[in-house]
Amino acid sequence: MKLKKQEIDARMSKLSGWQLAGDSIKKDFKLGDFPAAMGFVVKIALEAERVQHHPDITIEYNRVRIVLTTHSEEGLTTKDFDLAEKIEKFFGA
Amino acid sequence: MKLKKQEIDARMSKLSGWQLAGDSIKKDFKLGDFPAAMGFVVKIALEAERVQHHPDITIEYNRVRIVLTTHSEEGLTTKDFDLAEKIEKFFGA
Repeated sequence: MKLKKQEIDARMSKLSGWQLAGDSIKKDFKLGDFPAAMGFVVKIALEAERVQHHPDITIEYNRVRIVLTTHSEEGLTTKDFDLAEKIEKFFGA
Repeated sequence: MKLKKQEIDARMSKLSGWQLAGDSIKKDFKLGDFPAAMGFVVKIALEAERVQHHPDITIEYNRVRIVLTTHSEEGLTTKDFDLAEKIEKFFGA
């Protein structure tokens, strides 16, 4: 179910460095090098497949951009924020 | 060494579906699903690391966009076309 503005604000306030852009949230991560970036992306991909929710992922050498939205709801849902929080854990790990 | 226009045209003519965009070449690939797209990306990543030439890669569910350029030469080199040909083999494999 699509989140209301107030709910989005509440979830955003718990995330660091994520930007709200229309119906999506995004963040650019900087890793040490290309293998580190790919390792991070593979962790995200495995989690994405497990929960059947797939972010857009861009890899530019050691930089990884993640964009999350829920296409079926044409907006942001708890799925987006739950996955964003998991991604933060992978980045910190 | 940066390729001349004539050399670029010759290499482009051997590639199918790649577009010349300024100092880069790019192609959008469509795979069966997200795991297939990720498998394709991992193959590309391993080859990129082996040859130390790293394309920009965007994954949107079952679609993979590859952009190749040689930053150090501010243009296209044989590295870009050699990797593009390898990527075609991975896609066809």
